[in-house]
Amino acid sequence: MEKKVTIVGAGLVGSLLSIYLAKKGYHVNIFERRPDMRATQMSAGKSINLALSDRGWRGLAGVGIADEIKKIAIPMYGRFIHHKDGSNAYQPYGKDKQAIYSVSRADINMKLMDLAEKQKNVKIHFDKRCTAVNRNDLKASFEDNNTKQQTETQSDLLFGADGAFAASRLSVQLQADRFEYNQHYIDCGYKELIIPPGEGGKFQLEENALHIWPRGSFMMIALPNPDGNFTCTLFLPFEGEKSFSKLTTDADIKQFFEREFADAVPFMPTLLQDFKQNPVSSLVTVKCFPWTFDNKIALIGDAAHAIVPFYGQGMNCGFEDCVVLNELIDKHKENWDLILPEYQSLRKPDSDAIADLAIANFVEMRDKTADPKFLLQKKIEARFSEKHPEKWIPLYSMVTYSPHIRYSTAMKEGAKQQAIMDKIMALPDIENKWSSIEVENEILKYV
Amino acid sequence: MEKKVTIVGAGLVGSLLSIYLAKKGYHVNIFERRPDMRATQMSAGKSINLALSDRGWRGLAGVGIADEIKKIAIPMYGRFIHHKDGSNAYQPYGKDKQAIYSVSRADINMKLMDLAEKQKNVKIHFDKRCTAVNRNDLKASFEDNNTKQQTETQSDLLFGADGAFAASRLSVQLQADRFEYNQHYIDCGYKELIIPPGEGGKFQLEENALHIWPRGSFMMIALPNPDGNFTCTLFLPFEGEKSFSKLTTDADIKQFFEREFADAVPFMPTLLQDFKQNPVSSLVTVKCFPWTFDNKIALIGDAAHAIVPFYGQGMNCGFEDCVVLNELIDKHKENWDLILPEYQSLRKPDSDAIADLAIANFVEMRDKTADPKFLLQKKIEARFSEKHPEKWIPLYSMVTYSPHIRYSTAMKEGAKQQAIMDKIMALPDIENKWSSIEVENEILKYV
Repeated sequence: MEKKVTIVGAGLVGSLLSIYLAKKGYHVNIFERRPDMRATQMSAGKSINLALSDRGWRGLAGVGIADEIKKIAIPMYGRFIHHKDGSNAYQPYGKDKQAIYSVSRADINMKLMDLAEKQKNVKIHFDKRCTAVNRNDLKASFEDNNTKQQTETQSDLLFGADGAFAASRLSVQLQADRFEYNQHYIDCGYKELIIPPGEGGKFQLEENALHIWPRGSFMMIALPNPDGNFTCTLFLPFEGEKSFSKLTTDADIKQFFEREFADAVPFMPTLLQDFKQNPVSSLVTVKCFPWTFDNKIALIGDAAHAIVPFYGQGMNCGFEDCVVLNELIDKHKENWDLILPEYQSLRKPDSDAIADLAIANFVEMRDKTADPKFLLQKKIEARFSEKHPEKWIPLYSMVTYSPHIRYSTAMKEGAKQQAIMDKIMALPDIENKWSSIEVENEILKYV
Repeated sequence: MEKKVTIVGAGLVGSLLSIYLAKKGYHVNIFERRPDMRATQMSAGKSINLALSDRGWRGLAGVGIADEIKKIAIPMYGRFIHHKDGSNAYQPYGKDKQAIYSVSRADINMKLMDLAEKQKNVKIHFDKRCTAVNRNDLKASFEDNNTKQQTETQSDLLFGADGAFAASRLSVQLQADRFEYNQHYIDCGYKELIIPPGEGGKFQLEENALHIWPRGSFMMIALPNPDGNFTCTLFLPFEGEKSFSKLTTDADIKQFFEREFADAVPFMPTLLQDFKQNPVSSLVTVKCFPWTFDNKIALIGDAAHAIVPFYGQGMNCGFEDCVVLNELIDKHKENWDLILPEYQSLRKPDSDAIADLAIANFVEMRDKTADPKFLLQKKIEARFSEKHPEKWIPLYSMVTYSPHIRYSTAMKEGAKQQAIMDKIMALPDIENKWSSIEVENEILKYV
């Protein structure tokens, strides 16, 4: 019984999903809107970086490809904060050697495509734009970008893995009654910039860290790449006093960077050119439901739950979708009438949670990482967690390093922790006695 | 300077808008997806009823057609509550002769089409399904339902008035970045039923009232029609203990109605047949933004803000859109670069407010109208409002009878009133002293 599967989209999640399904014996055809990125030269400064963390690694390990990916990933053990006055601070992300890993979106996607095509029952069809998915007969239609020819394919299962603006989702939702749908844009956009390698290909900033220039209502971040450069991303409001709309002339741009990111500017020789050349992109959250239709069609990854990037969990959450789906295939012995309902009922609350946490983390990154009170709170939590690891795992660690804890559970626990820390931070003289046994006992009252 | 306008949709708002624009000298073409309803027989029991109130009347009066519509409308001066034990209660909607008016959706729509076509510069094209709106050149494409032929039309302005699932909106939003969009369904569906006239064409229930059978998690309502019948609507959860999913056999349906709506059943001779024949429809709220594009395209009515029907304000809000737009045309002397931005910034908060109020009113109608405490609160408010009309207009009256008060203002005032009434209702022995000077003075402290 070899079942035929169609996957719309050969992005990160579509490619990984194809490997999972191929290993279960399914025959998979992936249709990808874009040309094969492995055959075309990627332009520099446009390689968005992602942070792989434990949920993502678990997804890769599940099909035995984590080691392959680790070769193109750089561990980041903490946040390196660049204050406006030129001073720095370093905040470890977890304990010991806990890290998140910087990977280029293009690199990992190309690697995943390679690994998918190594499966004898996976085929990727490029330049095929999804024009329709028919719920009744599970026929999907694609138009070739070059020849404009239509192809139709029929399968036993179909996955929409074609991202936040999924054509597959739109097609299916227009045939569905009572489809819950919400797309929300934050007021900030982002622009990619670059810090190239220094002399001899050396990193110009601390290599094993995620760099943040927190500036209250906006921020810049930088993630390392294996070739010695950093991908920088400026997150800035579209409109307002300090916004993209105000950066129109060369002088505006230079002044803005020299005032806000003075320590970075010397490392950005192509700043002006990059700024003017690279687009401003928007940041969307998509929540929808249901994710599955007739127990034959399912949305996965960003097509089901696009989130903003501030928790570094978009890809990780999509890979976790694959892990959960794979477990359910085993649990229900390939009975898709049981697999898909449980898949969506398990994953919906978790993806809603990480969507909300990601929005909240924008405020934390751009604003609170520069706030001494916030840093003190993190220190108190870290200390308490180290002494009582069974009683307290900080929220960031639950989300990032604890794949056995569901996102929805992490969010609930995090809210409880915050309520406790609000009381602790209100204790008189907390700045001086934060590491005392008194404070520890105070926390122990609540946990 | 005769400007050409395209309106997508000849529903209630599209038809009324065409009259407003025609009277300003615009040349209007309306394209309607459905066939001309005036030429086809409407099937009985499917004529949804609407409640026209002061905002709607103002919209009609603005082009001098209120009197024409009043001929097909029946005033309802209050809620007639049918309790489960067979007892009744009557709650006036306002003071004196304040009423909302029952009209059949089909009747008022047909009348508005007649009135639109009386304008020499309005033409309605039926059976034309909108397939695309091109933002760049303002060309709209339509497919004829019968011939399948494509027509294209170009104009200086285009209005999307094609309802909650507007094809015009979808087409435009796919060409827009950062389009905020939210569609949400409540857990209840609805089904239309009928109470036909009795002997000699007489109304079988009190004619000048909106009848409610409040049952906690669900309800039935009935609105009068000029020919002596009542359109009944059953609002019931899709799933759960008491739900449409449980009403599958004739016995289920009969038992349910006899248990829940015993006093109505004798007046519903075709109940079983109607129930099985009529569909269960869903109830959606659509919120989106922006409503205008390039100052040449605008969404209006349900296409901009579909709401649930429980405040009886969907049509009234759409007509108010036309009133506001008309005022802005005068104010800005037909400068659409000024009209459309102000139109959306004025109307967005108001339509958001009535959307939220409509959701909240479902709970009030199905549950609280049977609650003695709630009824007492309404009596106290009515009494206080009568003595101090300058200090207190009840929320329902602000929304329904006070077109000069914006929906958003009414919602804010309503929240303040509720906070005050929470205190008043908590006074000891309020049941007995509700009409006392003591209670009146207590309210006066807060207003």
